[in-house]
Amino acid sequence: MADRQTPGGQTAARPPHIVRRSIARLIRFAAAALGVSSLVTACTGLPAEPGAAVRGTGDLGVVIERATGRLQVVETTGMTSLGTIDGLGDLSHASVVFSRDGRYAFVFGRDGGLSRVDLLAQRITHRVKQAGNSIGGAILQGGKVVAAQNYAPGGIKLFDAGTLELLSEIPAIGPDGRRSKVVGLADLPGQRLAASLFEAGEIWIIDASDPRQPQVTRLPAGREPYDGLMTPDGRWYLAGLFGEDGLSLVDLWQTPPATRKVLSGYGRGETPLPVYKMPHLRGWAMAQGQAWLPAIGRHELLVADPARNWQEQARVAVAGQPVFAMARPDGRQVWVNFAFPKNDTVQVVDTATRQVVKTLTPCHGVLHMELTPKGEALWLSCRDDNRVEVYDTATFRRIATLTADQPSGIFFTVRAQRIGM
Amino acid sequence: MADRQTPGGQTAARPPHIVRRSIARLIRFAAAALGVSSLVTACTGLPAEPGAAVRGTGDLGVVIERATGRLQVVETTGMTSLGTIDGLGDLSHASVVFSRDGRYAFVFGRDGGLSRVDLLAQRITHRVKQAGNSIGGAILQGGKVVAAQNYAPGGIKLFDAGTLELLSEIPAIGPDGRRSKVVGLADLPGQRLAASLFEAGEIWIIDASDPRQPQVTRLPAGREPYDGLMTPDGRWYLAGLFGEDGLSLVDLWQTPPATRKVLSGYGRGETPLPVYKMPHLRGWAMAQGQAWLPAIGRHELLVADPARNWQEQARVAVAGQPVFAMARPDGRQVWVNFAFPKNDTVQVVDTATRQVVKTLTPCHGVLHMELTPKGEALWLSCRDDNRVEVYDTATFRRIATLTADQPSGIFFTVRAQRIGM
Repeated sequence: MADRQTPGGQTAARPPHIVRRSIARLIRFAAAALGVSSLVTACTGLPAEPGAAVRGTGDLGVVIERATGRLQVVETTGMTSLGTIDGLGDLSHASVVFSRDGRYAFVFGRDGGLSRVDLLAQRITHRVKQAGNSIGGAILQGGKVVAAQNYAPGGIKLFDAGTLELLSEIPAIGPDGRRSKVVGLADLPGQRLAASLFEAGEIWIIDASDPRQPQVTRLPAGREPYDGLMTPDGRWYLAGLFGEDGLSLVDLWQTPPATRKVLSGYGRGETPLPVYKMPHLRGWAMAQGQAWLPAIGRHELLVADPARNWQEQARVAVAGQPVFAMARPDGRQVWVNFAFPKNDTVQVVDTATRQVVKTLTPCHGVLHMELTPKGEALWLSCRDDNRVEVYDTATFRRIATLTADQPSGIFFTVRAQRIGM
Repeated sequence: MADRQTPGGQTAARPPHIVRRSIARLIRFAAAALGVSSLVTACTGLPAEPGAAVRGTGDLGVVIERATGRLQVVETTGMTSLGTIDGLGDLSHASVVFSRDGRYAFVFGRDGGLSRVDLLAQRITHRVKQAGNSIGGAILQGGKVVAAQNYAPGGIKLFDAGTLELLSEIPAIGPDGRRSKVVGLADLPGQRLAASLFEAGEIWIIDASDPRQPQVTRLPAGREPYDGLMTPDGRWYLAGLFGEDGLSLVDLWQTPPATRKVLSGYGRGETPLPVYKMPHLRGWAMAQGQAWLPAIGRHELLVADPARNWQEQARVAVAGQPVFAMARPDGRQVWVNFAFPKNDTVQVVDTATRQVVKTLTPCHGVLHMELTPKGEALWLSCRDDNRVEVYDTATFRRIATLTADQPSGIFFTVRAQRIGM
């Protein structure tokens, strides 16, 4: 087909651009013969993305299958699984952030592996082993830089979100010259990050406007910050303290930023309970302007009010030691799961009445929960029963069940649209 | 190519499946000749979504080109235009909501046309002429039902979001038996809607759990509600009143819901200014728990606090009669545009200090503004200068300019993830 008869009857090779044009015509003919007229556009125009699905990404999510190093891609409209992606390494305690277009998931494995996964093509596009022991990460506001927080060697690394090229490394060296474990990494407005240093007892505010030359502001935090939270408005960074009672708070609207202690007496004078599992602060909930915090070791949520100097406003008794306290996006409900032996239980608190309005015992080993973007449904992982369950948050009825191999974290692409997630 | 020689030398028509297979081979050959091996998969394998792009939808948006009945599809990562879609009718005062996966835009035209547009394939998939004069719409929490609010005939219609099949019609008949114009339609948590009836002076709360049998709760609102707003937490519905001073408020957490007046004296006793353009309440901003409202006819924003019975906390003087007051997602800034003759001006208020921190005069006829999901950039439409401009909200520098034909509304897919948008 690339040759033609000359007027004189001879066969002559065509120049390449004529060949391309002819082949495009041929494809158009073939498509027309197939009765797929618009195939023409697909086959002659952009783009060619073999094997990738054409679909919106606003309702996508991933479920971590921790034991098998696998990711399950799910969608929350039909509440189905779309496929699995293998080869992600050790995914115990893995966490995920998303590109701003919702197409790519960045998976931080416990073994220091950082993978960029294409949710539409269902494959790993890039993967680096960036540390020996890692605990999660963040994506900067503009979406161009991904940051990993590492235990060993303790520090933060910044990567190009398109290629996972290492842009810079920030060793977490405290005042005594030794490296700390980094926890509580979160993105702030303005291409910045906040993080906490466990051994050094510091909170760092990192300006990564130039990600090859990040600038660090060091603040004293108190003894052993073990996790941190950025409020969804990007104003307050809170670090939970393991080595003392209370939390360390930074008001990022203050110039220059400074730390202060809040809620410092919440367990004082009472017999401390043994701590079965540290609460995860990333799950702390803001609802109706107040913060709902899982108390360490106590069977309580604490309610604190940022507008009243973060003073304790109330305590709500719950079934066990809370791990995650997640607000429905409208703030009317807070969903809570628990440490062993109550890790078969989930409770729902009505934030208007501060009462537990529902106690569910869905399954064994409830590890994580995630709410849909507008909050009509909650997904939870049942590690020991190898499934994910979906609940209608209005009726508390189970509306779907998905099979998963020891599922832990559940992450939806809406996180790409939210500060500090 | 669809015929072949039989062994006996005759030409025989092939059965269709053989034809298809041959053509697939032909396409493969043609693609190989073009040196585009992956085209093969794209053209012969799944999925058959002709002409549609494989890409994430989290960074997509649309710009209304009002005079030409055209939509421009844009993306906010590279800040570029991806194409245009024609044939949408009268788009003056058009508004847009998005499917929960971010792939489809529902465009409400002033002429009553409702179109479902595929942003990935860049085409209209469904279109109905559903009223004579329409003013916008909403999509319910679950994403399965789209609602249109109509001036003529006054009422609300519910449509299947997948097919635009009419599910039910709610005529806006007030206590006197006459039809009203419907304004301020917004989605609430729990498959519900709120709307205001201009002539009837009512606020309606509509339970559309069964969209073929919606249930209406009617509340008295005051004289001539002209627009309404749902706070992002789904708790407060406010209607601005044209026929009297102040606003009508519903606390949707209250059982049964009831209306009350708030901010009723804000213009009293002073000489009213002529109103050049009604402020749009959909743009009202919540920042740090407070509501920032454009005052009607006055060169002021009002700050009201829901936690203090919606009392006025402050007024901020601005350059003209405000039209939209839009909060950056972190609440630190409120961006304001103005009615004629100040429609060449945009101001930025710092919500921490309540001061105007920047005055821009970007162009003539600034009609609308939209912030990126995490707030790093603001897009604005310059109707009279036929362009869209993008600003960095940290530096206030213009970072991109796009050509557009008399652009009005700008809408990003992140609206699909937010209550009341």
